[in-house]
Amino acid sequence: MKVIILGAGLVGRAMALDLARDKELKVYVADINQTRLNQLKIEGLLTYTQDLSQKDKLQELIADKDLVLNAMPGFLGYQTLKTCLESGKSVVDIAFFPEDPFSLNTLALEKGVTAVVDCGVAPGLSHILATYGLSHLDRGDSLTIYVGGLPVVRQWPFEYKAVFSPSDLIEEYVRPARLRENGRLVFKPALSEPELVEVEGLGTLEAFNTDGLRTLLRTLNIPDMKEKTLRYPGHREKMLILKEAGFFSSEPVEFKGQSIKPVEFTNHLLFSKLILGPGEEDITILKVLLTGEKEGRKVQLTYELLDRYDRKNGIHSMARTTGYTATMVIRAISLGLISERGIIPPEFLGKKPEVFSFIRHGLEERGITIKEKIENLS
Amino acid sequence: MKVIILGAGLVGRAMALDLARDKELKVYVADINQTRLNQLKIEGLLTYTQDLSQKDKLQELIADKDLVLNAMPGFLGYQTLKTCLESGKSVVDIAFFPEDPFSLNTLALEKGVTAVVDCGVAPGLSHILATYGLSHLDRGDSLTIYVGGLPVVRQWPFEYKAVFSPSDLIEEYVRPARLRENGRLVFKPALSEPELVEVEGLGTLEAFNTDGLRTLLRTLNIPDMKEKTLRYPGHREKMLILKEAGFFSSEPVEFKGQSIKPVEFTNHLLFSKLILGPGEEDITILKVLLTGEKEGRKVQLTYELLDRYDRKNGIHSMARTTGYTATMVIRAISLGLISERGIIPPEFLGKKPEVFSFIRHGLEERGITIKEKIENLS
Repeated sequence: MKVIILGAGLVGRAMALDLARDKELKVYVADINQTRLNQLKIEGLLTYTQDLSQKDKLQELIADKDLVLNAMPGFLGYQTLKTCLESGKSVVDIAFFPEDPFSLNTLALEKGVTAVVDCGVAPGLSHILATYGLSHLDRGDSLTIYVGGLPVVRQWPFEYKAVFSPSDLIEEYVRPARLRENGRLVFKPALSEPELVEVEGLGTLEAFNTDGLRTLLRTLNIPDMKEKTLRYPGHREKMLILKEAGFFSSEPVEFKGQSIKPVEFTNHLLFSKLILGPGEEDITILKVLLTGEKEGRKVQLTYELLDRYDRKNGIHSMARTTGYTATMVIRAISLGLISERGIIPPEFLGKKPEVFSFIRHGLEERGITIKEKIENLS
Repeated sequence: MKVIILGAGLVGRAMALDLARDKELKVYVADINQTRLNQLKIEGLLTYTQDLSQKDKLQELIADKDLVLNAMPGFLGYQTLKTCLESGKSVVDIAFFPEDPFSLNTLALEKGVTAVVDCGVAPGLSHILATYGLSHLDRGDSLTIYVGGLPVVRQWPFEYKAVFSPSDLIEEYVRPARLRENGRLVFKPALSEPELVEVEGLGTLEAFNTDGLRTLLRTLNIPDMKEKTLRYPGHREKMLILKEAGFFSSEPVEFKGQSIKPVEFTNHLLFSKLILGPGEEDITILKVLLTGEKEGRKVQLTYELLDRYDRKNGIHSMARTTGYTATMVIRAISLGLISERGIIPPEFLGKKPEVFSFIRHGLEERGITIKEKIENLS
């Protein structure tokens, strides 16, 4: 079976190397960035140097492939997925684009293909664990998702670096967070409602609202749901300072006869400072808390993972947890474990025991272990 | 006598209104900014709208004047002073330009004119108090100057606004601080060596190194000298964050085919956020600490002032303390109290009892009182 990965960033590379280990899969990677591809060539992968924002070029590339992994940056994600569906390809998507994926459902159904969207660690594994947990309850009352990728080395002032582009990072700090309170959809500013969270073996982190529930707001009817991002304490305030000072604004300002969006200049200036370099170790934390009723008792289910940088293969933890969730779903599709057509949000997979255990087992084989806990609240 | 003020900023206005109260002075104000001048016209002053960066225009304006007050922004200060001296005019200068004023001494002497430079609150009154204090000692051991202008209303994140241009402010946070330790000139980064300082009636402030000693490094031979800027605690770290992130860098970066100095874009973005608006009240604190020997005893002299916004006339405290020091010196020159020629740093005036008491008395008449204290250290 031929699988093509669109986007050879740090996550794209992790997925490519992982899938390449499967005898029955032939793996291709496409990117506009030649240097990224050279690295993957050395690692024995088949690559295409191509501007994937050009629809015809993209169509050409995917024409003879069976499955597509969309790892493009957010702003290109939607159009890329659309083109893949139009070409009748099934897709696993980790572009996390801002548009509504369900707007492509009719297209996917018409073409008779499957598109699992938001299929990373969070959104992604987080949503899978939410519905897996719910399947053990008679009623769900609240869902809280905590997620964070952190560099091991804390460097002042930001004490943060990402495996994805700073533009997507800043977008996460600007876009209002949608959550549900008492059954109502509410919008809160990104970075709002900070709280300290203790993580075993890591110490105290700070959590704040981000817009990570996404499809869950439509697919789950739990009255209280929120997603919060975890960072080292203090990172949040520094981002707020830049935001308040206007450095994240996308309102163009006139500067020396040129119209400049401050956020774009800020991206440009901070890019190198906020990207994890090769060998810069990171950690990923995911914590999913679910409260509800089971046989008349109030209970809380907790799913937790703490993953670390893969020194042996030089793969970042954020790339591992995001990428291996996606590659396990690609495998599930290729094996026919996911036969449903249309736009499939990850929470759909948590309801299918055989798919869930397939993904969980695959993650465990790759050293990503999900700790499970159930507690009585009453 | 005809006095012209070059620059009609907030300090320029304060000086103009103050000097205009003297019957024997005819006061003119020149600026490129028409709106600023309109305000002063309403207040009964004679104004010129002129681009003072054009040498010939400047020469024309000052030709028939007796005295000049240079209140131009720092980057235009030196050339403006030079032009005034070439035209044979005596000057009081509060442009605080980065160049060495003594490089104009020969010119001033040739022309037989007086130029009192750095003649604001600090540098300015600070230096006057330093030598005034020294005149009471047999030997000076250490000099510490604390100075700060602060808005009464503390607004997150910066909790600071200035009466002068943000470009001069950021320059203050970037230029290495020159100080003297054990008789040696040392350079320390701006914003370095923070310490908490208690100010009566105001609470805890934070002080850090800035490059404010200036001429004192040349004119005073006290083995330990430093100048520190006072801000509300936390302001310093926020400036350091912007500095570390690269927003204060003057290294051009390529952005969308254009070469941009981040610091200039930052100035542009923060300008309105960092300038005190009309009616926005401020406070000025100046504290000069001098240790030394007097009749065999180790003593410490302290000179302190805390000045507040003038509500009646809507004049900012930073404009009062900076401007009235300069206007008292203009008067001293016009009355022949300062007959010396050449470049005169303010510390020179502190050694002349009659000049010192004239300035101090004038400041007191304007509600600026200097508290004096002497303590035995041994």
